Amino acid sequence: MTGAGIDTALLESLAGQGLTVRRPASPLTEDLLARELRGAVAYLHGGEERATARVLRKAKTLKVVAFLGVGYENFVDVAAADRLGIAVTNTPGAATDAVATFTVTQIVNANLGIPRHLGERVPGWQGSDELPHELAARRVGIIGMGANGRRIAEILRRGFGVRVSYYSRTRRPDAERDLGISYLPLLDLAAGSDILVVMVPETGETRSMIDSSVISRMPEGAILVNTARPAIVSPGALYAGLEKGRVSMAVFDGFYGQECEEAGELRRDFPDRLLVTGHIASHTAEAMHRMVRQAVKSIENVLTYGSDEHEVGTRPRPRF
Amino acid sequence: MTGAGIDTALLESLAGQGLTVRRPASPLTEDLLARELRGAVAYLHGGEERATARVLRKAKTLKVVAFLGVGYENFVDVAAADRLGIAVTNTPGAATDAVATFTVTQIVNANLGIPRHLGERVPGWQGSDELPHELAARRVGIIGMGANGRRIAEILRRGFGVRVSYYSRTRRPDAERDLGISYLPLLDLAAGSDILVVMVPETGETRSMIDSSVISRMPEGAILVNTARPAIVSPGALYAGLEKGRVSMAVFDGFYGQECEEAGELRRDFPDRLLVTGHIASHTAEAMHRMVRQAVKSIENVLTYGSDEHEVGTRPRPRF
Repeated sequence: MTGAGIDTALLESLAGQGLTVRRPASPLTEDLLARELRGAVAYLHGGEERATARVLRKAKTLKVVAFLGVGYENFVDVAAADRLGIAVTNTPGAATDAVATFTVTQIVNANLGIPRHLGERVPGWQGSDELPHELAARRVGIIGMGANGRRIAEILRRGFGVRVSYYSRTRRPDAERDLGISYLPLLDLAAGSDILVVMVPETGETRSMIDSSVISRMPEGAILVNTARPAIVSPGALYAGLEKGRVSMAVFDGFYGQECEEAGELRRDFPDRLLVTGHIASHTAEAMHRMVRQAVKSIENVLTYGSDEHEVGTRPRPRF
Repeated sequence: MTGAGIDTALLESLAGQGLTVRRPASPLTEDLLARELRGAVAYLHGGEERATARVLRKAKTLKVVAFLGVGYENFVDVAAADRLGIAVTNTPGAATDAVATFTVTQIVNANLGIPRHLGERVPGWQGSDELPHELAARRVGIIGMGANGRRIAEILRRGFGVRVSYYSRTRRPDAERDLGISYLPLLDLAAGSDILVVMVPETGETRSMIDSSVISRMPEGAILVNTARPAIVSPGALYAGLEKGRVSMAVFDGFYGQECEEAGELRRDFPDRLLVTGHIASHTAEAMHRMVRQAVKSIENVLTYGSDEHEVGTRPRPRF
């Protein structure tokens, strides 16, 4: 298993079944990961490494990859796993409360400009020109209405009484009815939201989904909150949006990597208008506990019964 | 009128009645304030100065003090105003949404340890020992169940699904029933709350109400959130609570003044465990707008009809 921050007591049931748990140090290159998986029957993916087709082909004894979290697409080549008969599971729902609470936290922080206000007001401070707007007076648009998006909408509607609209590949009449939210096509949602929240998994389809066509429709001074993976927002389009004032503040949980040329430019030119945390939205004790417990259960199910309810692939037949 | 951050357009209706609006620079000493009030018929209190008995006695023409906000007790000597027949009004409800949203924002910030996490995770960061708890897994206690306390409870219950208890001088069966919250005596509330929220006005009765008897009952590592006035929490008791680990983090909106000896010691010894903003909870454009509009209306009512529905004193007879 990979990744830090996992309570080893949760892995005891695996040891009880005669399995040995190895925890390699991160970060893992493709070669290092392939070496670590030699002889492994199960792989609990809790880190940032990529289980590519090449890695999986070399893992001759592997039966299951249990991904810790929901958005596995960027980390596990499920098509390759399917071809090899390796089960891939994820942990839907386990971190929904944590991610939604974190996202709402950053929405209210960005909306109030809290980071600017930490530390006492300087004497003579004149607030008149920069009074923030009340959250209840803001229109919030949510892109993605899976479990996380829905829980975010629920907190905003039921708790704060905010007007919420959403865009999703699939319309969600149940959420519309239960929460009193309305569906809008993506570009209309961008145009009608003071705060635009991105909550979709990273896939080939969603990468750079928030591009200049979306950002250029945002109303002057809007806030972009992306607590999903960074790559869903095009860094070049974000740069232009910040420069032109469409985006007054951008929130990220995890930021573009060193390989992204615009990442440094964004940090250099807009240090006060980026609110960045280190991919910690799901990092609560309770969410981590639920995720690991669920992943361990999935591993046990695949090893014992050959399959698990949380498999995400479409492998034609179990391995062996 | 005093204080910054007020949209002057809202004062136009006063000018329309033949009144002249003066805006003295702050801060105002007792003597400066007395001089500014010479000849004034109305005084919109939007600053931090104190309208003492001495100041009010000198203001021979004054008919109304309109306090911008709710907790006037520390700023206007209402007993003296009553004796002089001067009306004192406040603006209940105008900032409730702003104050409650701000307070919940700081609750989630403190609970997640957000300030520590702003900026990207350093490589190799091991989160295991310091994973925050989910808000929904925390017991929140609210001291004070006026309009603000009630709205905080509502957001926490309906939005985040948190267990909420409260203490209030007067029990609130309607809030208990509507929101599903439970009443506890103050010391029991302190003992049973992971997050203790202070939301009472500052009065002679509430000053240092959160003393060592309260703080010493708090469970190890609890969070104290005081978005009411600082003096409600005894600074010495807070110091001891932080030192002994009862309090892991203390949130203030506005902090003790220079005259408070412990203020410097708190800042020096616990810089990372104080989350302080500059008395900005009610500072949203919408709340300020509503407060000023309400205060202007109160001034007009007293000047025209001799009284207003938002008077807080018990003056036996209108002046003149």
